[in-house]
Amino acid sequence: MNVGPTRVAHGLATPPEPLSKDYLERAADKRAAQAAKIPEEWRLEPLPSVEETPNALEYIRSSGVLSAEELAITETVDVADLARKLAAGDLSSVQVVSAFSKRAAVAHQLTTCCTEIFFEEALEEAKRLDEVLARTGKPVGPLHGIPVSVKDSVDVKGHDTSIGWVGLTDRPAKRDAGITTMLRRLGAVLYVKTNIPQSLMMSDSYNHLFGQCVNHLNRNLISGGSSGGESALIGARGSPVGVGTDIGGSIRIPAALSGLYGLSPTYARHPYERPGPRQRIIIATAGPLASSLSSIESYMEALPQANPWELDNLVVPVPWRTEQCTISPPGRKLKIGYILDDGIVRPQPPITRAVKEVVAALEEAGHEVSEWDTSSHNYAWDLWKKGVMSDGGLGCKRLCDMSGEPLVEGMLVGTSEDLLSTEETHQLLADIDAYRAEYLRHWNEGGYDAIITPVTPWVGYKPWTWVKSNQYVGYTTLSNLLDWAGLAIPVTTVSKEKDQTPPADWVEYQPRNPSDEFNKQQYDFNLVEGIPVGLQIMAGKYGDEKCIAVAKVIEDLLKQ
Amino acid sequence: MNVGPTRVAHGLATPPEPLSKDYLERAADKRAAQAAKIPEEWRLEPLPSVEETPNALEYIRSSGVLSAEELAITETVDVADLARKLAAGDLSSVQVVSAFSKRAAVAHQLTTCCTEIFFEEALEEAKRLDEVLARTGKPVGPLHGIPVSVKDSVDVKGHDTSIGWVGLTDRPAKRDAGITTMLRRLGAVLYVKTNIPQSLMMSDSYNHLFGQCVNHLNRNLISGGSSGGESALIGARGSPVGVGTDIGGSIRIPAALSGLYGLSPTYARHPYERPGPRQRIIIATAGPLASSLSSIESYMEALPQANPWELDNLVVPVPWRTEQCTISPPGRKLKIGYILDDGIVRPQPPITRAVKEVVAALEEAGHEVSEWDTSSHNYAWDLWKKGVMSDGGLGCKRLCDMSGEPLVEGMLVGTSEDLLSTEETHQLLADIDAYRAEYLRHWNEGGYDAIITPVTPWVGYKPWTWVKSNQYVGYTTLSNLLDWAGLAIPVTTVSKEKDQTPPADWVEYQPRNPSDEFNKQQYDFNLVEGIPVGLQIMAGKYGDEKCIAVAKVIEDLLKQ
Repeated sequence: MNVGPTRVAHGLATPPEPLSKDYLERAADKRAAQAAKIPEEWRLEPLPSVEETPNALEYIRSSGVLSAEELAITETVDVADLARKLAAGDLSSVQVVSAFSKRAAVAHQLTTCCTEIFFEEALEEAKRLDEVLARTGKPVGPLHGIPVSVKDSVDVKGHDTSIGWVGLTDRPAKRDAGITTMLRRLGAVLYVKTNIPQSLMMSDSYNHLFGQCVNHLNRNLISGGSSGGESALIGARGSPVGVGTDIGGSIRIPAALSGLYGLSPTYARHPYERPGPRQRIIIATAGPLASSLSSIESYMEALPQANPWELDNLVVPVPWRTEQCTISPPGRKLKIGYILDDGIVRPQPPITRAVKEVVAALEEAGHEVSEWDTSSHNYAWDLWKKGVMSDGGLGCKRLCDMSGEPLVEGMLVGTSEDLLSTEETHQLLADIDAYRAEYLRHWNEGGYDAIITPVTPWVGYKPWTWVKSNQYVGYTTLSNLLDWAGLAIPVTTVSKEKDQTPPADWVEYQPRNPSDEFNKQQYDFNLVEGIPVGLQIMAGKYGDEKCIAVAKVIEDLLKQ
Repeated sequence: MNVGPTRVAHGLATPPEPLSKDYLERAADKRAAQAAKIPEEWRLEPLPSVEETPNALEYIRSSGVLSAEELAITETVDVADLARKLAAGDLSSVQVVSAFSKRAAVAHQLTTCCTEIFFEEALEEAKRLDEVLARTGKPVGPLHGIPVSVKDSVDVKGHDTSIGWVGLTDRPAKRDAGITTMLRRLGAVLYVKTNIPQSLMMSDSYNHLFGQCVNHLNRNLISGGSSGGESALIGARGSPVGVGTDIGGSIRIPAALSGLYGLSPTYARHPYERPGPRQRIIIATAGPLASSLSSIESYMEALPQANPWELDNLVVPVPWRTEQCTISPPGRKLKIGYILDDGIVRPQPPITRAVKEVVAALEEAGHEVSEWDTSSHNYAWDLWKKGVMSDGGLGCKRLCDMSGEPLVEGMLVGTSEDLLSTEETHQLLADIDAYRAEYLRHWNEGGYDAIITPVTPWVGYKPWTWVKSNQYVGYTTLSNLLDWAGLAIPVTTVSKEKDQTPPADWVEYQPRNPSDEFNKQQYDFNLVEGIPVGLQIMAGKYGDEKCIAVAKVIEDLLKQ
């Protein structure tokens, strides 16, 4: 087991800054402790190289590291299936937790997807749940016995919440976060926390503490961020469902890059307390990533049973409206807006193709589709950036100062120039309010069911590419600015037949700004062949169920 | 009809500052235009003096200014009764709107409760609604044909939203606010807007534009604030239900001083957009005032039928849970905390008596009552003050500068010393979050149904007393800080028999701070004899329905 900086072990780019010994030593200690949490019999020795084994999922499925039973359990893509089998006693929680723990351990060694690992504790909890079920005949909750992974930023009592900052290690959480309490109430078993980028403000999950997380389908590429550990872990089927967080795309981007589903809910529907001083102009949401739409639905449907509004002051007692997860009456024609190019950064050809294919399928089925007006989106992007950068980078500076670790350049972190005064903050809040009101008015008056949009304008990047990209994430930040639900779904994969020769309007296209230019330059079919392409469904505030309903319609059409 | 500053006409205190001619002239013009909106036949000439006619309600009931039919209609205290009669065609909207308009006109002349008056427009709308009902046989909505008053801060298309600032006159609103649209969707008829204090940040509804609003039961006393026009108007039965707003008690304080019911809801349950730059640390709510509990319930129950979440981004689609408005199962024993004295300002004797009477009645009926721990409330009061004053008074300064009008001294408006930096704002937000989380934890772990508290620590004040009081409103600001529902209900009246001789523990009590001292000194039985005493019910976030359920239990017990 490699316990050095995994980023380097993967043969990827070298860090941008000389590293101070003190923080490097602390990071090495932390990774050594992490490695020790993986039972010897689950260690891959030697670790397959990226060159020989770029696809971690394929390796896990075919290498024989998992038994047939472990494979069968972990390949179950529907959480509700697992729940039924567990409730009926066809599977024990010990079996399920053991299988996913082993697969998570293997996935981690291949992709650096985990931060905290606590398999033993999870197995104890699984035993307890099995006993409760045996004794009472009743599952503890709708997620009884199911392992659920959580992003590192979620407090789990007794384990660090370092969020990748060296200075935050060795401070085990004194109590569970609301998310954790909620998951326990639902019967879930916590077993790992997952990797993230420094600051959480980039789409590439690298930090100096745990190293570089990579894509489970192609370890040369990134798994996205900031919930990039979740997407690599779930993609490798080391977790049936995981909890990410999203302030600008941090659930949806990793989901899209990994061929997964990821829901950034309306924020008041899922607990996510973030204690401590910070800007609250743009508020991060927490939500699920999973390898099936049904798992997203099952997870969201389960939440209200834990009374999450008792655990987080921002959660509202809106029941999950299962009936809204299916279009009613069946066959009703939808009114859909779509975005091919938001006028800021034109998506790379496979993404444009994905939007066009979905739109064509909807149109052919008789749904009303029209191009969505994005003329205000540059302004929206500006509002969002002003909000998330409004502390002038002071928060990150403090965290760096705790250990001497360097700040990664190129993240969406403010500098002193971005620091807002109180008066400027009030003006920004008023501007955002007015923007939301206008968007809501337009949305309601139009009677739309959903908007279909790209998630990222790029298909796949190597590590340390994103930080040079002028960081455009405007396709996803819009929903955070509006506090709307946004759901990423996989739609297609980059294909030799369809994508090797880019269309003329891409080749001839003159970029409009540096982000656009970078995005165009970086498109390299050979780098991303076979990589999934996801799209986003937005369906208004509290449109979480509607996102799922529209996703079902699209999936049905694409299957045909 | 008196068109000069009504405050002066009422023979009350003179303004604290020499007034510049320009703004005085503009104010006089505005009041002249307002007076002209009252039909000649509804004008009181001569206007009864405060000395001879202190009680406006009594005067309206007995003077013969209203016909028997007008009296019968306007004395209907239950909005649902009115709605049934209107829907059945037993009353027309023209009848109902005419009767309430006339009574509002009379009430205004006696208490200065109105700002914008638009009876003719209301009558046209009433005619239209009568026609729709005649044609379709169906009411437009649950408030079909019912006049509803709104606080001046609510935009009604075509009318000023001056909020008492001279500089904001002559700028008719270009469109309806969300509240207004919602009311129209429900079938309500808008006919008046109501008076408020300058800045909305005091409990005495005086402003230099419209003058001094006074209490309908004793015109020597104030009607509270900032929704003091609503309480005077509804108290005088010039409106069956009205919409106030509340950032620290502005619905509940006027309601309590006027013997009314007033609900400051969890903010996300009632629209209240406030465009423009301002602090959003403590957010104002909008909610109903009425002369019956059933009207509060009917009003809140009606709202979701207008889909208010389409009109205001902050409103959530939580349905109104009628079943939670009654304790279930019937007779279930409640767990109630109560506050006699929060350790900051000890309430005057009639208020303490009111709490004790309610507690005794609950205890006798077998409910579990215990004193609520208020040890953190001073800290909470400090957090609230920091939030509402965080703009350092800049907002009010700008509004004064628009016309040259002076700022009223003694309001809860910040000075440059209160201006928070961005970093201080982030810390305050974190502190508030942590406080809310702890309060929520304590509340949930205790399994409480409600907390019974004073509304104000004082019973009644003359105009211009409150501004000298060191402005303690901590009994009501707690719910705004927590974003909990708070309901004011009338409980008793100041009585010769029970209150003329204050108890020894009041007489001997040594005040703990200047606010406490002022509050003790001001208690004067002779000033407040016969005045209502209200209490507050708090029942957690989204506890709006529970507040009503507990109020019903208390009312039933007090009737016995």
